[in-house]
Amino acid sequence: MQLSAATWPEIRDCESDLAVVPVGSTEQHGPHAPLGTDTLTATAVAEAGVAAYHEQTGEDVPITPTIPIGIAAEHRGFDGTLWVSPETFRAYVRETIASLAHHGFDRVVIVNGHGGNTDALGEITGTISREDAAYAVAFTWFEGIDTEREMGHGGPVETSLISHLDREAIRENELPAASEGAAEGWGEWVAGVNLAHDSDEFTDNGVVGDPTAATPELGERLLTRSGDALAALLVAVDSRDRGDETD
Amino acid sequence: MQLSAATWPEIRDCESDLAVVPVGSTEQHGPHAPLGTDTLTATAVAEAGVAAYHEQTGEDVPITPTIPIGIAAEHRGFDGTLWVSPETFRAYVRETIASLAHHGFDRVVIVNGHGGNTDALGEITGTISREDAAYAVAFTWFEGIDTEREMGHGGPVETSLISHLDREAIRENELPAASEGAAEGWGEWVAGVNLAHDSDEFTDNGVVGDPTAATPELGERLLTRSGDALAALLVAVDSRDRGDETD
Amino acid sequence: MQLSAATWPEIRDCESDLAVVPVGSTEQHGPHAPLGTDTLTATAVAEAGVAAYHEQTGEDVPITPTIPIGIAAEHRGFDGTLWVSPETFRAYVRETIASLAHHGFDRVVIVNGHGGNTDALGEITGTISREDAAYAVAFTWFEGIDTEREMGHGGPVETSLISHLDREAIRENELPAASEGAAEGWGEWVAGVNLAHDSDEFTDNGVVGDPTAATPELGERLLTRSGDALAALLVAVDSRDRGDETD
Amino acid sequence: MQLSAATWPEIRDCESDLAVVPVGSTEQHGPHAPLGTDTLTATAVAEAGVAAYHEQTGEDVPITPTIPIGIAAEHRGFDGTLWVSPETFRAYVRETIASLAHHGFDRVVIVNGHGGNTDALGEITGTISREDAAYAVAFTWFEGIDTEREMGHGGPVETSLISHLDREAIRENELPAASEGAAEGWGEWVAGVNLAHDSDEFTDNGVVGDPTAATPELGERLLTRSGDALAALLVAVDSRDRGDETD
Amino acid sequence: MQLSAATWPEIRDCESDLAVVPVGSTEQHGPHAPLGTDTLTATAVAEAGVAAYHEQTGEDVPITPTIPIGIAAEHRGFDGTLWVSPETFRAYVRETIASLAHHGFDRVVIVNGHGGNTDALGEITGTISREDAAYAVAFTWFEGIDTEREMGHGGPVETSLISHLDREAIRENELPAASEGAAEGWGEWVAGVNLAHDSDEFTDNGVVGDPTAATPELGERLLTRSGDALAALLVAVDSRDRGDETD
Amino acid sequence: MQLSAATWPEIRDCESDLAVVPVGSTEQHGPHAPLGTDTLTATAVAEAGVAAYHEQTGEDVPITPTIPIGIAAEHRGFDGTLWVSPETFRAYVRETIASLAHHGFDRVVIVNGHGGNTDALGEITGTISREDAAYAVAFTWFEGIDTEREMGHGGPVETSLISHLDREAIRENELPAASEGAAEGWGEWVAGVNLAHDSDEFTDNGVVGDPTAATPELGERLLTRSGDALAALLVAVDSRDRGDETD
Repeated sequence: MQLSAATWPEIRDCESDLAVVPVGSTEQHGPHAPLGTDTLTATAVAEAGVAAYHEQTGEDVPITPTIPIGIAAEHRGFDGTLWVSPETFRAYVRETIASLAHHGFDRVVIVNGHGGNTDALGEITGTISREDAAYAVAFTWFEGIDTEREMGHGGPVETSLISHLDREAIRENELPAASEGAAEGWGEWVAGVNLAHDSDEFTDNGVVGDPTAATPELGERLLTRSGDALAALLVAVDSRDRGDETD
Repeated sequence: MQLSAATWPEIRDCESDLAVVPVGSTEQHGPHAPLGTDTLTATAVAEAGVAAYHEQTGEDVPITPTIPIGIAAEHRGFDGTLWVSPETFRAYVRETIASLAHHGFDRVVIVNGHGGNTDALGEITGTISREDAAYAVAFTWFEGIDTEREMGHGGPVETSLISHLDREAIRENELPAASEGAAEGWGEWVAGVNLAHDSDEFTDNGVVGDPTAATPELGERLLTRSGDALAALLVAVDSRDRGDETD
Repeated sequence: MQLSAATWPEIRDCESDLAVVPVGSTEQHGPHAPLGTDTLTATAVAEAGVAAYHEQTGEDVPITPTIPIGIAAEHRGFDGTLWVSPETFRAYVRETIASLAHHGFDRVVIVNGHGGNTDALGEITGTISREDAAYAVAFTWFEGIDTEREMGHGGPVETSLISHLDREAIRENELPAASEGAAEGWGEWVAGVNLAHDSDEFTDNGVVGDPTAATPELGERLLTRSGDALAALLVAVDSRDRGDETD
Repeated sequence: MQLSAATWPEIRDCESDLAVVPVGSTEQHGPHAPLGTDTLTATAVAEAGVAAYHEQTGEDVPITPTIPIGIAAEHRGFDGTLWVSPETFRAYVRETIASLAHHGFDRVVIVNGHGGNTDALGEITGTISREDAAYAVAFTWFEGIDTEREMGHGGPVETSLISHLDREAIRENELPAASEGAAEGWGEWVAGVNLAHDSDEFTDNGVVGDPTAATPELGERLLTRSGDALAALLVAVDSRDRGDETD
Repeated sequence: MQLSAATWPEIRDCESDLAVVPVGSTEQHGPHAPLGTDTLTATAVAEAGVAAYHEQTGEDVPITPTIPIGIAAEHRGFDGTLWVSPETFRAYVRETIASLAHHGFDRVVIVNGHGGNTDALGEITGTISREDAAYAVAFTWFEGIDTEREMGHGGPVETSLISHLDREAIRENELPAASEGAAEGWGEWVAGVNLAHDSDEFTDNGVVGDPTAATPELGERLLTRSGDALAALLVAVDSRDRGDETD
Repeated sequence: MQLSAATWPEIRDCESDLAVVPVGSTEQHGPHAPLGTDTLTATAVAEAGVAAYHEQTGEDVPITPTIPIGIAAEHRGFDGTLWVSPETFRAYVRETIASLAHHGFDRVVIVNGHGGNTDALGEITGTISREDAAYAVAFTWFEGIDTEREMGHGGPVETSLISHLDREAIRENELPAASEGAAEGWGEWVAGVNLAHDSDEFTDNGVVGDPTAATPELGERLLTRSGDALAALLVAVDSRDRGDETD
């Protein structure tokens, strides 16, 4: 249930205390995939998970609008990448969740499509659960499932999922170049430390991994698995004893 | 041109230094209109304006994703209304624009669909233009055109525009009740001062104005006028001498 | 009753829960009017309103010192203009009101003399009323009365009021030049949007409107009307049911 | 020269790069002295100092409006005391000085009338001088001269100065009670540490020291000495080599 | 070279532009290990690494004092755990590094002993390298080496290292109880998400892993490996081209 | 009792509600004394005081790790000086104390070794005592005792105490030069105002006072006196009625 498509009395009549907040990013994903990749995937996974949860429980969980701009300064070397500071991102998500809690939706699952948001979301879900009137956790879809291949960036995993969601969104004729100019791994590592703070230090075209290995069929499997994982998480969050969480 | 649908090389090849940032809100719009009304209208006006500008000039202007959650605590009395603090909203929009300017899009028009955002946008466009590496102004569509009727809230103007954009989005069977429970005007005024800080102090169902007076035809006219006004504004911003604006 | 002229036991014995906080600005008002114009007018209107209220009700309302420096970066092109950031201004006023509330003065009317402060005051009176231990509204005097003429800046309205308050404060010999160099209206508008963030983009000498049209008699009428309007507002604030305002 | 009484061209024609910023407080000063005592004294000392400096050098130094509300939470136990947080006070004064520096007044002396402001002013004058476009120092008048008697609070020193400035401002009939209920010293000390954070922990009526020992003649001497000290400071600030001060 | 043991001329004569900043935490480590465990380990690893680097290169690298209190709210359920907010921790470390850079030590390696600090350090090293006058990376010792066993918390890895550094610091008689009450793994996981924000939700005595498996010999190996890894990192940071890092 | 050397059950079993937080600085102390001087002295005084208190009362008071980096921008002219902003320092100390209060240690004495920290500590102990769940005061050791000689900076007082604590820490061969290049007093004063914001404006080698006058015997006396003073303060804080302190 898309909260933004509902009217306020429809939300008032919603009995769940669960809500889902998708969080994406607008950042380069190579010459073949759209800047909005992470927003598209977070939105799709949120919908798949809420649908799966509805099928299992009969309950409708509101999905807020996807927050479209995240923490992506590391991709600033590539045109069109948008970003806000971690402080601002944290505040924007935390306060959005506080407004959900004001209406009684105080068990919140953030569905995240971008690795660069993960640390910040880990931080604020702890803070929210300790200090605010809500319990929150963050689900980064590609960390919760078997992705079959390395995640990379604009690589086979994301390219597959986008292909499944919207075949046209992938520039097929750019795939060979995307693959050729890609880095094999993320970063430049010494002693377990990545010396490269920006992605243009180690990838020429923004890609990590081989997007020519992507298929819509893998994308479909990824979406199903992510939706099922999110549904399982919603079940667990719904029934979790919050006694220890409140300050 | 939707920035999020483009790839980074496509944005790199875009010659404009203009960009458009739509800003909406997720907040009650009565029992008949969706919570996402202001996001829908801001998005549609941004697209109409960029299309009109393209027709006139041949130039493509990137539109960022619509920022979906704004300043709406005044509607917190109605379920499903989401909001962030003015500080956080200002930071989120300002930093998004700074990232645009990083890529050379340093003449930015914010397209706003929500009256509650207007003051904050006026403030940051001044600050951005004085202190940051960009020039910015904010266009609140219903302030820039002849709306034929009083704006209200969830009233004939917004309901018309939504009807035109997506007929199904308006709950037709709720319109009589929406009209009946509506307030005639916004707020409770003494000596030019509104004593009511929250909308549920003066409207029972969240509506101000009579939504039964809405028509898709008026919506179409509103969209055309807004698009034309935005195109005219883009022309003016594109050619404006920024000598005086920089600190 | 000027709070700063009273002793603490005199304030302790004051039975009102009303207080008035005048807020001005120190900023250019053309070659003929003093930089302190907005502080003078806010102070005078506060006193007139509290006197009128006392006449009607017999009650004494404390007036705090006038906050003399506001949001005026838009006038930075003219010497002597002082300003603080909107964040700092909001914090300064909000915390001042919190200290009033600590002593039981928790129904507060801000009396504002400067248009540039209006948006910020609208924002914090909402926040104070929702989150702090007080109810507050802001009265910008020239928005609450019939001013007979366009407000402008350093124009006939303000010049009249200053003439009435302190005839010497207006440099009479500068009036012709002030009028000649004045802009007719505020800003440079396209599609309902003001493209000029700073006043020196559209007025050569800082004036908007014709100050030669000012008279002390109009100033006297403006003061009486403003005082009456403020008294009416105090009556309304005093009796307002705050049940809905408290979080 | 009161900046707020001048017009912008008059300030433009002012050749000094010195400016004076008086800072007071609105806080209890016992049953006999007004809440505005520190604002009155800071204002008077600023004027006396600028006059003495003018006499010596022929130069006119602008005095900004007195900032009337400072750091005074320690007096919150007594009605009418107003205060802001140290953070907000620091920002308000620092940004005011930044706006002076924008116009070329970049050697600034703060004239302070309240002990509770001293630490914060010491901090920001260092920060301003290191990081901003100005050099600033803070002069707390009763620290810069021979006060003949212990400062106290609402005691003989302040009461004398107020008596000299405005005889009516002191409630003479309250003086015996003020004296009787006064504390002998400020605070409760163990091992060089004051255990009392608020003044109502050690004084019943807010007074420290004996205000019956005050005389207008002492007040006059205090004002002359303070003015002379401030003039000497202005001379030193005017001629100070700022080479080492700039970052 | 401990910076705090040196005099300023000794630091002035130091030719390196490298510096090491150890960061620990003061938090529960079970009934057998001291609250200062992470501070002890970070300090020891920093010293071992700088010594190894000196042996290889002959260069002396200053080590700042260890920052002893970090991000540890997750352990607040156990007595004696100290923590600051992530915002404050980030500012404290970032500004410390800015002061190092002021003196020319602008290639900085943070040596971290606490997993809860990792995300925050990742964030600020990026921000420092992009926006400040320094390049920084963070080395969390147990992520950079072969630890032979699972890290846990107060488990075999940390207990071994402390045993090696200071045998007395481990309460040997508490080891059996520590082992018995320990959790096997960190957190409560569903779909790749840890539902437990605080450690007392999944471990009764604060321990994760079996500390009875610890040996001083393993501790010695861990220290050697960590020191070697840090030395290798210092070599890489010293020679890294910073062209791309500066804004 | 060093908190960081204890385990959490040992802290749990501690019955005191007192805690001691030592605060130092890492900053130049001339060519003869280490940069860590203030951290060493604060730590030693804290230990001496807690030992003396234990002797008197039998009670054990936990001492937190010493916060090693403070407010020292004024010494930035000398290499190796580290500092954070006053805001960050205040937050770091305040939040550390809040975490102590979480465990019931809500009567806190800060033991400070650096004059530059004093104002900030005065501010936050007031704020903590008014707004947080703890009562706090700050003891700057050289302000609480008879120091026999002028404090200076790296002068006879500090040099004596360091000599007593660690004879090797003082570079004896640098003492003559240290003395010769020293300033006689701190700052450049006009009208009670120090015109010098940074120490390198008035001392060539960072020293104020004559360190050749230092003796370990004086150091021993200073430590005993400081410890006794701190013990007396702990007694007073332990028994203080906090009724008036809580908001």
